[in-house]
Amino acid sequence: MLNDIRSGRIAAPEFLQGLIDTLTQRGRAVLGIKPDRDVGEDRDLELLGEALLSRRGEASGVAIAQSLLAAFERAAEPQRLKFLSSLADRFGPDRHAIELAIAAYQRKEGGDGSKLEALHAAAEPRRQELIRRLNLAPGGTSSLVRMREVLLALLREHPELQPVDDDFVHLFSSWFNRGFLVLRPIDWTTSANILEKIIRYEAVHAIQDWDDLRNRLEPPDRRCYAFFHPQLVDEPLIFVEVALTKEIPGAIGPLLDKSREAIAAHEATTAVFYSISNTQKGLAGVSFGNFLIKQVVQDLARELPNLKTFVTLSPVPGFAGWVRRELKTEASAAIDEETRRALAALDDGGDIAQAKEAITALAAYYFLKAKLPSGKPVDAVARFHLGNGARLERLNFLGDASAKGMKQSYGLMVNYLYALERIEANHEAFAEHGTVVASDKVKKALRAKLSSRDLVPSPHTNSQRKISS
Amino acid sequence: MLNDIRSGRIAAPEFLQGLIDTLTQRGRAVLGIKPDRDVGEDRDLELLGEALLSRRGEASGVAIAQSLLAAFERAAEPQRLKFLSSLADRFGPDRHAIELAIAAYQRKEGGDGSKLEALHAAAEPRRQELIRRLNLAPGGTSSLVRMREVLLALLREHPELQPVDDDFVHLFSSWFNRGFLVLRPIDWTTSANILEKIIRYEAVHAIQDWDDLRNRLEPPDRRCYAFFHPQLVDEPLIFVEVALTKEIPGAIGPLLDKSREAIAAHEATTAVFYSISNTQKGLAGVSFGNFLIKQVVQDLARELPNLKTFVTLSPVPGFAGWVRRELKTEASAAIDEETRRALAALDDGGDIAQAKEAITALAAYYFLKAKLPSGKPVDAVARFHLGNGARLERLNFLGDASAKGMKQSYGLMVNYLYALERIEANHEAFAEHGTVVASDKVKKALRAKLSSRDLVPSPHTNSQRKISS
Amino acid sequence: MLNDIRSGRIAAPEFLQGLIDTLTQRGRAVLGIKPDRDVGEDRDLELLGEALLSRRGEASGVAIAQSLLAAFERAAEPQRLKFLSSLADRFGPDRHAIELAIAAYQRKEGGDGSKLEALHAAAEPRRQELIRRLNLAPGGTSSLVRMREVLLALLREHPELQPVDDDFVHLFSSWFNRGFLVLRPIDWTTSANILEKIIRYEAVHAIQDWDDLRNRLEPPDRRCYAFFHPQLVDEPLIFVEVALTKEIPGAIGPLLDKSREAIAAHEATTAVFYSISNTQKGLAGVSFGNFLIKQVVQDLARELPNLKTFVTLSPVPGFAGWVRRELKTEASAAIDEETRRALAALDDGGDIAQAKEAITALAAYYFLKAKLPSGKPVDAVARFHLGNGARLERLNFLGDASAKGMKQSYGLMVNYLYALERIEANHEAFAEHGTVVASDKVKKALRAKLSSRDLVPSPHTNSQRKISS
Amino acid sequence: MLNDIRSGRIAAPEFLQGLIDTLTQRGRAVLGIKPDRDVGEDRDLELLGEALLSRRGEASGVAIAQSLLAAFERAAEPQRLKFLSSLADRFGPDRHAIELAIAAYQRKEGGDGSKLEALHAAAEPRRQELIRRLNLAPGGTSSLVRMREVLLALLREHPELQPVDDDFVHLFSSWFNRGFLVLRPIDWTTSANILEKIIRYEAVHAIQDWDDLRNRLEPPDRRCYAFFHPQLVDEPLIFVEVALTKEIPGAIGPLLDKSREAIAAHEATTAVFYSISNTQKGLAGVSFGNFLIKQVVQDLARELPNLKTFVTLSPVPGFAGWVRRELKTEASAAIDEETRRALAALDDGGDIAQAKEAITALAAYYFLKAKLPSGKPVDAVARFHLGNGARLERLNFLGDASAKGMKQSYGLMVNYLYALERIEANHEAFAEHGTVVASDKVKKALRAKLSSRDLVPSPHTNSQRKISS
Repeated sequence: MLNDIRSGRIAAPEFLQGLIDTLTQRGRAVLGIKPDRDVGEDRDLELLGEALLSRRGEASGVAIAQSLLAAFERAAEPQRLKFLSSLADRFGPDRHAIELAIAAYQRKEGGDGSKLEALHAAAEPRRQELIRRLNLAPGGTSSLVRMREVLLALLREHPELQPVDDDFVHLFSSWFNRGFLVLRPIDWTTSANILEKIIRYEAVHAIQDWDDLRNRLEPPDRRCYAFFHPQLVDEPLIFVEVALTKEIPGAIGPLLDKSREAIAAHEATTAVFYSISNTQKGLAGVSFGNFLIKQVVQDLARELPNLKTFVTLSPVPGFAGWVRRELKTEASAAIDEETRRALAALDDGGDIAQAKEAITALAAYYFLKAKLPSGKPVDAVARFHLGNGARLERLNFLGDASAKGMKQSYGLMVNYLYALERIEANHEAFAEHGTVVASDKVKKALRAKLSSRDLVPSPHTNSQRKISS
Repeated sequence: MLNDIRSGRIAAPEFLQGLIDTLTQRGRAVLGIKPDRDVGEDRDLELLGEALLSRRGEASGVAIAQSLLAAFERAAEPQRLKFLSSLADRFGPDRHAIELAIAAYQRKEGGDGSKLEALHAAAEPRRQELIRRLNLAPGGTSSLVRMREVLLALLREHPELQPVDDDFVHLFSSWFNRGFLVLRPIDWTTSANILEKIIRYEAVHAIQDWDDLRNRLEPPDRRCYAFFHPQLVDEPLIFVEVALTKEIPGAIGPLLDKSREAIAAHEATTAVFYSISNTQKGLAGVSFGNFLIKQVVQDLARELPNLKTFVTLSPVPGFAGWVRRELKTEASAAIDEETRRALAALDDGGDIAQAKEAITALAAYYFLKAKLPSGKPVDAVARFHLGNGARLERLNFLGDASAKGMKQSYGLMVNYLYALERIEANHEAFAEHGTVVASDKVKKALRAKLSSRDLVPSPHTNSQRKISS
Repeated sequence: MLNDIRSGRIAAPEFLQGLIDTLTQRGRAVLGIKPDRDVGEDRDLELLGEALLSRRGEASGVAIAQSLLAAFERAAEPQRLKFLSSLADRFGPDRHAIELAIAAYQRKEGGDGSKLEALHAAAEPRRQELIRRLNLAPGGTSSLVRMREVLLALLREHPELQPVDDDFVHLFSSWFNRGFLVLRPIDWTTSANILEKIIRYEAVHAIQDWDDLRNRLEPPDRRCYAFFHPQLVDEPLIFVEVALTKEIPGAIGPLLDKSREAIAAHEATTAVFYSISNTQKGLAGVSFGNFLIKQVVQDLARELPNLKTFVTLSPVPGFAGWVRRELKTEASAAIDEETRRALAALDDGGDIAQAKEAITALAAYYFLKAKLPSGKPVDAVARFHLGNGARLERLNFLGDASAKGMKQSYGLMVNYLYALERIEANHEAFAEHGTVVASDKVKKALRAKLSSRDLVPSPHTNSQRKISS
Repeated sequence: MLNDIRSGRIAAPEFLQGLIDTLTQRGRAVLGIKPDRDVGEDRDLELLGEALLSRRGEASGVAIAQSLLAAFERAAEPQRLKFLSSLADRFGPDRHAIELAIAAYQRKEGGDGSKLEALHAAAEPRRQELIRRLNLAPGGTSSLVRMREVLLALLREHPELQPVDDDFVHLFSSWFNRGFLVLRPIDWTTSANILEKIIRYEAVHAIQDWDDLRNRLEPPDRRCYAFFHPQLVDEPLIFVEVALTKEIPGAIGPLLDKSREAIAAHEATTAVFYSISNTQKGLAGVSFGNFLIKQVVQDLARELPNLKTFVTLSPVPGFAGWVRRELKTEASAAIDEETRRALAALDDGGDIAQAKEAITALAAYYFLKAKLPSGKPVDAVARFHLGNGARLERLNFLGDASAKGMKQSYGLMVNYLYALERIEANHEAFAEHGTVVASDKVKKALRAKLSSRDLVPSPHTNSQRKISS
């Protein structure tokens, strides 16, 4: 409504405009702020923050929150940085209060339940309450998500802002709790302003134009679902594109082919999640992907009882980079001479088909044995799906022969299988022991590779044992 | 949808039912819990709580949360108390972690920003995260509101649960933040399941039946608005009933009279808020009333530009009780001999009209001078409206001549005026100095009373000065 | 929207009000009508009708139609009758045009296709176009339905209005064509303004109050559906109440019992249509009942695959009246001495249970043999369901022991079975040969009765033969 | 829903499918039609038509109507023509019945009210009832609109189908009565499947792509509205595009310029209807354009009280063609030597700016004096707007400099002014006397032209007089 008023779609009666002006001017008067100053906007931001926190009660809370958020959006980068930095220090915890709270706690006067509470309250950075009050403004949640986007961009060069970011994540996790998310199908009857965001945010297989989009939404064997939040109207938070097929697909090309023949939905036995995209940079680290996939699996299973298999067709974004790094490592456990030769031939313009065996075996090694220091797989997409309880089902040589696909993974794509009755066990094995649950075929591809190197000792005996057990 | 399935409105395909069963059974298996045991349900609640917190990742978080909430709803009171008590201790802060965090903080190793964060995290009761995860379940928010209702009922006899309640309030305040609330008009086209809640929850002037309800919703000079939360579908959180009139009314009877003549909305100059009711006991202390009134004032002002006056017609629930207490106080500053006589005559069956002057003067004293130790007025309704920035506008003798009205306030009703351009100033005067902003007429009623007592010294000189200045 | 403006819910900007006034006044000016006259309102109606028809084009059609309909609603009965009579004559067919058209047709000049068209056009009463143009006004359809309600009330005393009514039926049948009707479930989330109409219009088993209504809508084993028309917003045209049960019920009492135990919807095997009510008197004779039942059968079958039996529990409104008439007929073929005695005993306060056999046999005769001159059954409800293709399934002695039930049918109720695969054949047998399709049990009850009378010859041999063939 | 089932979006339970099959097969069985025959599909159509009409009652009406419409859509052109021809003869009026009805009417037995009715009924072509019954099928209205589209395409070569078309228009006019149309704003939140129709159907200024579309819908100073019919879901019937401006625009280019600066809606004083497009060929001749414009004027006036001027920016599609025809007419009253020279210079590649005066004067003549035999202006767009009661306000030289614009009208565009308080008078002047209501400026342009030709007598003295009076 307010947006409508601002855009002029609705005529705000003078009375109402007067009200808003009054509140805002009065807010400024109270703070000793002169309107429309060019200088000192950054000081305003901090002052407005103090005003928002200090005011007893909330008579003008909404108006002040609105002013602060609007001023931040208008501000230039240095001013924004200054405000975010003030969140780190000025609006950090009150050290004096903490010292007192610790002392009281350590004296354990009067039973310590309330002391603990007091300590927790004292240790809470003031910015948490500030952010909660900013959320009072109409459109506040959306503005705060954008504010964090700004923060994330600054974070690398300003690591001292990390605690601020942690608090954003903490609060967002509470507000974007699964319980508050709404799943909605996206199809060709969805409104254009949402669809253009689908086009813009698709991160895996770019959508060329509206025809391409329609080709992914309108045929009877295509589906798309997104999570929405009541406060971010018309803003999908994450979406997944689904193809309904008769078998597990090994390549993305045929799925996206505009001239393919669609099948009737009830003929399909397999639902293929071929693209999952987050849309809000400002919500990075607030995870809804696993909820989305599980919810969609449930909804599809209910709608189409013939569906028996739920599977992804996923890219392998880190594969080629990892291979390149291994090639430079002289004593790479992953790359033997034969593989090295095959890859060299490829670089010399050789036929990729010749390298099929080498690449597939290398991929098996990449998924099952290449680990981060944390013990988790190197591949980020693998960590996501395995962490959700999926199983690595199949390696698809030349699944994505596009330039991008060749460059990032030698054209490799993989399927992760979501077998509902195994999800929890898989998840636990992965979460607690780092076990990569994989199909026999994938494991066999690794064993073939390893045995071919015969006597070369594996540096990852442990994880290997897990896999082959 | 799940509710539909449970109620049998939608047939859950076997597949899906299997999924839910699998997750639940598996959850139980993991925990070593045997299904359908009669004993030890309380232990289950705590175990489920631990499971919900300990599980790395969230593969079964939703299912466990659902099980715990369902088990709590089924549990008998002793088991519920036991679980809530475990929230107070078992799921309280981790003391060992706190000691370590305090020590680390006090050593101030490695810069103390992160140490502070660690301290805050350590001091956070584990129940906070537990409650956040319970909110993952479908319908979780609603279940948690009911859980707190149970908690509130136990609180008086179990003050040790107070910290648990504080955490509920803290989290609910974040989730029921103004930014997440949706204002909706309630009228005769509203669905019956919502309307029956309006009937049930009306706390000020009881709604007798559906005809009475219609009389408050359908005429063109009547309005009703409620706040809803996306997670509590079809559950109004708070609602206000409004009459559109040509003048500030002094009595509730004519407003609710079924035989009155309605006027056209655009003829009205005055919007009268004659009833405000909260509906969710479990949300006590999470305040939305002030937002509701201000939003309704804005919306009405936009819709009906002829409206110039926004005013309440409010009960004075504490008046008669306060008078009775003062009567017992021999040296009451409020009650002089004449007043005492007038009230005695009333008790002897005298005509109330005779006591008009005495009661009105006494009421002026009650509002302007009778204070709590905190310096705020004794009257709870007054605290609410004055705290919102309204002004005490008029004392209405015999505004509510019903038995209830006579009993609680000698029939007195009052109007609080919401003048938007004064709201913030009024609010500040009240919040910072306890000033009761009142119309000249009300203040004059007090002065008349005080001067009539001539030489009797006032024990509240300070606040008097404030008022008369 | 216009209704909102009129009721004052929306402030009509002066501009718009001006527009409406201008059009209306101008309309009056053109017609030489002075505003607000008390006399001659009836003349205005006819003049407005002529204006609506004569105006070339439609510049003010909407405004004139609106004026005419509003004037009709305001008019007193004599004026209304006068206008409706003018529809019969003044706005009847143009005789002169007809004579010319007949002459042209009979000369068959220039091929007769166009002559036929001209004849048809000439023979069309002018009121048809008038009614079509009245439908241009906002809310026009609704006003016309009310106008016909007035017409129907006058028809008995003014049979000359019959052709007018025929044209209403003709046009309404086109506008309320099945294709334009929308089926909507009615439940406890339906808006109160619709539900109060359900209460008001329920014609079979009166709904006492809102609790009774809820008892019919909210339990999981209850359903209600209504047809709506886009132009009659919030006005159900016809609705059916459905109980989901585990067997075919024989009595209405247990179905409506507020203390009964509800079952889950998916447990039910049988859907019972226990009440069907039309709501708009003005749409009498425009039939949607058969579409409603068939649509509901389809929708329920889709939603609840366990439902195998679709059946009514219906009153027998004409039974007692018919029995009384037969009792007075000395040589009644239906009533033998034994039956006569049983009924006499009943009249003397005898136990109805004693009369079970007599009444059941008599009912079998009533349904299977008592016919109108048209050859159709005497019972109106039977004609409706049999005409829809249902089968008379069961006679339920004491199915409705209420005072009303006892009075109209000695407590008898019956079930009509809708077996989808038999509907068409049943319908044809009934429509073309008058055959009452009935279950063996019902037919047996008749045979028992007839054979008991042994040698008494039946005066309805033909229809009997049909039944037993 | 049925569409969903057919497309496979919803799994039709076997039961339901069985029902549909049963009905359809049974329908075929009754008719002696074998399923899936290749030959004789055309005969089927007629047989199905007879079945639909002859069946007493409606047990299978919906199924038969559905079969007939589906068969028609599948049929090849010869079969379709055959069926449409059968509508003209076989399903024409029943001549025998007509002869009897005429005879009865002429005998005037028994009062002639009912005879007239009988005559009207007899003269009604049987196809009218057939078409009404076809409308019973789900989606029937939509199918019938497409059927008429087929009919219109055949009409030129088969004039004998004209009476069939007349009946379609008659019935559609009743079903698409203003009272049944719903106005909806079209904007960037409208669903894509509707928006793509806006792109496809825009007939005046083609929409290039989705960006172009957005440029016409999303800016705060742009609006679009369409009429919808409840039976043609998601199918706009007609739509108008509106620009909000500060003055009456003279050229289309700046309005559609993607780089222009938008203004706030409440700043606008003028609403410009710059494109009106019908979408359904099958509804040609069923007019809603005038209702659309008037409704949009009302809605905009309500929403934006600052709007004072409602005007079109319209093409002049017939202008250049008319000029070319006049050029060939030696004694053209419209074209004098000077004009002839100016146009010749233009043809030789001369600067159009030189021809401004000649073209403007010629245009004034074109609008004010060039008439059809009916006395109406030659220009179709002018007939539409003048017929609606608009005034020809301004001639805009080079209003549309696109190739299309230059070709059809030498770049000329015009504004028609909708002044609500004058609409009715203008409409009447035009409808009854053919008067072209025009602004003084336009009339002056004509006078200038005429006086420049001095003594040349006008062949249209009458209409000239009207104009200058």
